[in-house]
Amino acid sequence: MKINGNYANIQQSYLFSTVAAKVKQYSQEHPQADIIKLGIGDVTLPLCSAVCDAMHAAVDEMGVQETFKGYGPEQGYGFLKEALVSYYAGKGVTLMPDEIFISDGAKSDLGNILDLFDRDNTVLVPDPVYPVYVDTNIMDGRRIIFADANESNGFLPMPDKDTDADIIYICSPNNPTGAVYNKQQLKAWVDYALARQALILFDAAYEAFISGDLPTSIYQIEGAQECAIEFCSFSKTAGFTGTRCGYTVVPAGLERGGMKLNKMWLRRQTTKFNGVPYIVQKGAAAVFSPEGQKQIRQNIAYYKNNAQVIARTMRELGIWFTGGENSPYIWLKCPGGMKSWDFFDYLLEKANVVGTPGSGFGKNGECFFRLTAFGDAGRTLEATERIKKLIKNDFRG
Amino acid sequence: MKINGNYANIQQSYLFSTVAAKVKQYSQEHPQADIIKLGIGDVTLPLCSAVCDAMHAAVDEMGVQETFKGYGPEQGYGFLKEALVSYYAGKGVTLMPDEIFISDGAKSDLGNILDLFDRDNTVLVPDPVYPVYVDTNIMDGRRIIFADANESNGFLPMPDKDTDADIIYICSPNNPTGAVYNKQQLKAWVDYALARQALILFDAAYEAFISGDLPTSIYQIEGAQECAIEFCSFSKTAGFTGTRCGYTVVPAGLERGGMKLNKMWLRRQTTKFNGVPYIVQKGAAAVFSPEGQKQIRQNIAYYKNNAQVIARTMRELGIWFTGGENSPYIWLKCPGGMKSWDFFDYLLEKANVVGTPGSGFGKNGECFFRLTAFGDAGRTLEATERIKKLIKNDFRG
Repeated sequence: MKINGNYANIQQSYLFSTVAAKVKQYSQEHPQADIIKLGIGDVTLPLCSAVCDAMHAAVDEMGVQETFKGYGPEQGYGFLKEALVSYYAGKGVTLMPDEIFISDGAKSDLGNILDLFDRDNTVLVPDPVYPVYVDTNIMDGRRIIFADANESNGFLPMPDKDTDADIIYICSPNNPTGAVYNKQQLKAWVDYALARQALILFDAAYEAFISGDLPTSIYQIEGAQECAIEFCSFSKTAGFTGTRCGYTVVPAGLERGGMKLNKMWLRRQTTKFNGVPYIVQKGAAAVFSPEGQKQIRQNIAYYKNNAQVIARTMRELGIWFTGGENSPYIWLKCPGGMKSWDFFDYLLEKANVVGTPGSGFGKNGECFFRLTAFGDAGRTLEATERIKKLIKNDFRG
Repeated sequence: MKINGNYANIQQSYLFSTVAAKVKQYSQEHPQADIIKLGIGDVTLPLCSAVCDAMHAAVDEMGVQETFKGYGPEQGYGFLKEALVSYYAGKGVTLMPDEIFISDGAKSDLGNILDLFDRDNTVLVPDPVYPVYVDTNIMDGRRIIFADANESNGFLPMPDKDTDADIIYICSPNNPTGAVYNKQQLKAWVDYALARQALILFDAAYEAFISGDLPTSIYQIEGAQECAIEFCSFSKTAGFTGTRCGYTVVPAGLERGGMKLNKMWLRRQTTKFNGVPYIVQKGAAAVFSPEGQKQIRQNIAYYKNNAQVIARTMRELGIWFTGGENSPYIWLKCPGGMKSWDFFDYLLEKANVVGTPGSGFGKNGECFFRLTAFGDAGRTLEATERIKKLIKNDFRG
């Protein structure tokens, strides 16, 4: 029995475990310290009442023979796919229900979609990045190259016509940098992909944080339906990180190697997946009710307000950053040229504030740092006051 | 961009769609016909009240900030893993919580586990069989060989020492045949796997239908912890086909190629999966409460009674069959040497009863036929009365 030897090549990520260990040690040594965590990448507000009401009703349906639901369609119920068709119509994007696949989350689909592609493909991944793009391709043994995201391009790398890539990851709004591509920039990526028959895997998990004219779907870009698959999720949109629902759009006309990717993904999902719980799909559909939309928009506004409080602090301190406007993340340049982990220790010890070292997301993350807006509003404000006082004193005094 | 060309080799299964089309056509041509479906492979009884109560409580928790749950452990909550440790202890099997991985169902895990294995392995699959074992391996391009299940071995093929297999699928109680291996038979498979360092993928999805002394877990067999991964599900145990929860056991000591498969699977799941909804895990845990056990046992007894009604009919008619005792499936030999699809048409037209042609599950299924016990008790009895009358008249008259 031969195992998949590529697993031996995956680097263990110690980012969040090291953060946790350092915070634990500091707390033990300083039991009086009032630590504020701005490193958390998970939502904290509860599910809105429209979603809970829909799930209660669905549980009741499941408890009665006449309304009980057994196996559903692997690709999701029509009621949820139709709600998403309408949601996309609101973005000016026309989709057919069969182009939408409901799943248990974007993370699953971003990994599982690779089943459809040969190992002999070159994958282009931005650096810094959400580690899952890299690890899932290492597991398959694909060649990975990186697109440098850095201060000079505002952490929004653009295509280089001399780079040969077959599969391209784009995450906008970006995790961890919070940077968002505009339409012109995304158009350049779509044109690049079309020119070489490459495929874009577009991670739109944070699209609900975008205000104004920036693209919230790759399909708002002409030509994207011929070169892109889009992944999205209710996790950050509606607080579903522990409730698990996402969706993937595979355009009907998208072909590579003479095969329709939509049919391939349907085959993959009907063979290796059995759909999302009926109860959860009913909850997800309630997100699109008028009441649900109002409630989730309130939650997003709450997080965005936290982001703006942090962003304002950075501006006031003259610290370079991305994100904070259309994203729950603020990606800042460590003051005084500090390295990421040094700044982590400095903030923890001097302000009792916890963030995430940027170097944990890739080599270009060194000397950068991520703060998140998913915390409590009052605590976030308190944390920024402490940061302001500390940095003004040490660096801008 | 190169796609995974193996997808072109997967045969489209028309089994259930052809059954549906034939039934639809017959209904249209005979609108007065009172058709009884004994072909359904899905549960029909609603979720029990212990499960619904637990899910209602969990929805309430999700709606309040203090008890809201975001990301949970990808491999499942401790409360559910501990409940399963106790459940296995009741079978005489000692497991550690870290050996259990909660998932959205056995189908997902049976497909996804293949990520851990090289493509260069020979896979041994019984014929007839649940089609997913074959399709998922074709997707990866593995060599597949078959173990012949037939009347002479009671549809329970035994290992052949001259067969070189690296990965071995065993499903007991079997879908579609309902046949169940005894301990001695499973021991022969474990010994075969140990002797050649092969790996058994043991599908125990129907274990809850077993009464008496037959093994309900491969780990009841000595040595299995060194050669087997077990997949199980709440789908048929507790009616979770539309609620989605299963679990996979990967023993801590199980190694191949110098790698611990438990660590590999943990890495796979933490990278490509984000766990099962908290609400669903709370529902699944309630299955193990005293009230939950009582309620699900009642439901299983209901289905098993249906199975016995069908089995009794076959015995009375002198028709050879497997299953029906420790399984919701009855796998019968078509009377008069009829082929599977001919018997399907015959039963539909002459008795207005729908079943599933055995030939749809593999070449050895030809001339066999599957009836299932998941229907209504009264309708199942009515169907057997019709079958009895018809076959007595045509074949035993």
